[in-house]
Amino acid sequence: MLSRPDVAVVGAGPVGLAIAWRCATRGLRVVVHDPAPGSGASHVAAGMLAPVAEAYFGEHELTGLLTASAARWPAFAAELTAATGVDVGYRTEGTLMVGLTTDDLAEARRLWAYQQRIGLPVTPLRPSALRDREPALAPRVRGGALAATDHQVDPRRLVPALRTAAERAGATLVPAAVRRLSDVEAGVTVVAAGCGAAALTGLPVRPVKGQLVRLRAPGGGAPGFRHVIRGYADGEHVYLVPRSDGEVVVGATVEERTDTDVSAGAVLRLLRAAVDLLPELAEYDLVEALAGLRPGTPDNAPILGPLPGRPGVLAATGHHRHGIVLTPVTADLIADLISTGTADPLLAPFTPARFTPATAARSGSGPSVPEEEHTWN
Amino acid sequence: MLSRPDVAVVGAGPVGLAIAWRCATRGLRVVVHDPAPGSGASHVAAGMLAPVAEAYFGEHELTGLLTASAARWPAFAAELTAATGVDVGYRTEGTLMVGLTTDDLAEARRLWAYQQRIGLPVTPLRPSALRDREPALAPRVRGGALAATDHQVDPRRLVPALRTAAERAGATLVPAAVRRLSDVEAGVTVVAAGCGAAALTGLPVRPVKGQLVRLRAPGGGAPGFRHVIRGYADGEHVYLVPRSDGEVVVGATVEERTDTDVSAGAVLRLLRAAVDLLPELAEYDLVEALAGLRPGTPDNAPILGPLPGRPGVLAATGHHRHGIVLTPVTADLIADLISTGTADPLLAPFTPARFTPATAARSGSGPSVPEEEHTWN
Repeated sequence: MLSRPDVAVVGAGPVGLAIAWRCATRGLRVVVHDPAPGSGASHVAAGMLAPVAEAYFGEHELTGLLTASAARWPAFAAELTAATGVDVGYRTEGTLMVGLTTDDLAEARRLWAYQQRIGLPVTPLRPSALRDREPALAPRVRGGALAATDHQVDPRRLVPALRTAAERAGATLVPAAVRRLSDVEAGVTVVAAGCGAAALTGLPVRPVKGQLVRLRAPGGGAPGFRHVIRGYADGEHVYLVPRSDGEVVVGATVEERTDTDVSAGAVLRLLRAAVDLLPELAEYDLVEALAGLRPGTPDNAPILGPLPGRPGVLAATGHHRHGIVLTPVTADLIADLISTGTADPLLAPFTPARFTPATAARSGSGPSVPEEEHTWN
Repeated sequence: MLSRPDVAVVGAGPVGLAIAWRCATRGLRVVVHDPAPGSGASHVAAGMLAPVAEAYFGEHELTGLLTASAARWPAFAAELTAATGVDVGYRTEGTLMVGLTTDDLAEARRLWAYQQRIGLPVTPLRPSALRDREPALAPRVRGGALAATDHQVDPRRLVPALRTAAERAGATLVPAAVRRLSDVEAGVTVVAAGCGAAALTGLPVRPVKGQLVRLRAPGGGAPGFRHVIRGYADGEHVYLVPRSDGEVVVGATVEERTDTDVSAGAVLRLLRAAVDLLPELAEYDLVEALAGLRPGTPDNAPILGPLPGRPGVLAATGHHRHGIVLTPVTADLIADLISTGTADPLLAPFTPARFTPATAARSGSGPSVPEEEHTWN
């Protein structure tokens, strides 16, 4: 086998591969362990880079990290394409947030007001301006707003590109599972194993099931809309992500379940909301219905940094619904931490220490916990 | 190769295989040609044996044939199981026809009244009796009726069983396509090629697309209902077929299209109607969404018998939505015709001659044409 590497990354999803790439380009010897690269949450993910639309009440620190990472995406995507020749589907048309009914719009407007209050670029649109931007929206859509800086990328292009970039930079992929961290020989071990981090580290990462469907525009053309649409539709929250190859991703449920079965009810709710918002989607082919498991955490924020009591072990997991957008900032900050030994202040709110017994009682040491989620199990 | 067979059957769907089986058991040497047995409409079919629920205004002769064939099903299934050891999923709980809204019920009742008028066994049920039979029906289902003699079979079990039975009786399967009937060497050639019959014979058989979804009860159990449910739900016509292995078939669209793409709109309509009628289906797994092409004819009735101007060629095609229920009567009558040379009077309304120029003008020689379908293209 290889001589002892400087860095072992456990998990070849986007986060693990990007860390490996960033470490390898800094001259570190890197090994990535994963029996099935890219087969986790990223295979299901829609790829929205949406710090604005995803800015929820009470998640200030997370919003800050999302914003910081989204700002890195243009350069990250360009660098990745330069390194690999792969177009990762980075698109900048922006995101339209829309409400179907008066009630939906009222709910959405409360959130938009919050997002504007904390300084995020949300631009309410008159109905005529909304339809100028997306004529395919249903006439009954009551109103909307533009998040111009919320972009998208295609995770199914991203992961192979990151793997190529990491390998070209010198990283080695070992296609085997890691059962215990003590089995890994390396200067530093980074646990980027998504939901698998719980068993390896004891960190409170739990699976949060998401179901989505993938449609395809008939006739081989591009979809009849260009923006990412984030809709409130009769109480359902749904997003519609158009790809230039004709694919439309419709997602996603958020369920406290650990199976990956696709349920009739979830597909019904997603399709109903999608077709209510964009009627032409009824004519699209239904290509795939699938479910994945996001690595959720008690405060919905990722877990990034040194694992208390485990020298030489770093966590980079718990990205929940934000794994794709958070890939660049996670990779940069973890690689910096490994190569310089100093943690960027951006990492402070996301330290694993916030979930260890000695520090859990120190309120204010981590991201604020949303009201509906005081405890974790 | 073989010496010239007595009978060549083109098409190894249920109709072709059953004809082969019946001919082989009569001592005839039989060859069946099909590059992909069972891959046509039967792979998608739900397997309802429903002459009562399928009895529509203006289709008297067809209803007679459906009834005659359904009456043969118990013995046919028993004989097939005896010959092969295969349980083909023949179930006799009967069919509940239900209306979701007042409008749906009014529409359904007009049809039930017609069905009763022509002597078919339709039993209207009080709401309490309906729920005694199927407690899982949604509370808002307004009313229903029982068609106790409308049963079901599983086409995906039926076709392999028929193939085994035919082969055990001495028939030979040739896994290759027939491009021209002149390529076939046999005493009698039977065209049982579904939609493929059009190209081989010039008969007016056209593809009628049907989409359906297959669900599965969670946890590996049987579905929470026993009857076939035929629902009218906010104007949608849907059927729900429970199998003892946990499968539930939800079908089906009827579309004048020739593709087999699955559309988001069709899946949405099927799932919405299904969940509206039986709310627990929302929790079922969505296992499969697929489309097939039924062999439709101008008068919705099959085409059975000698092809005018083509001595030694018989048609057994155009079964449209009724291929499974019509399998026994088709096989028996075609095998009788081949072995005795005499056509059963039951075949008379379904002769191919009704679509050939010399006889097309003789009104009354074929099944009556439904009002909405005077012409074919």
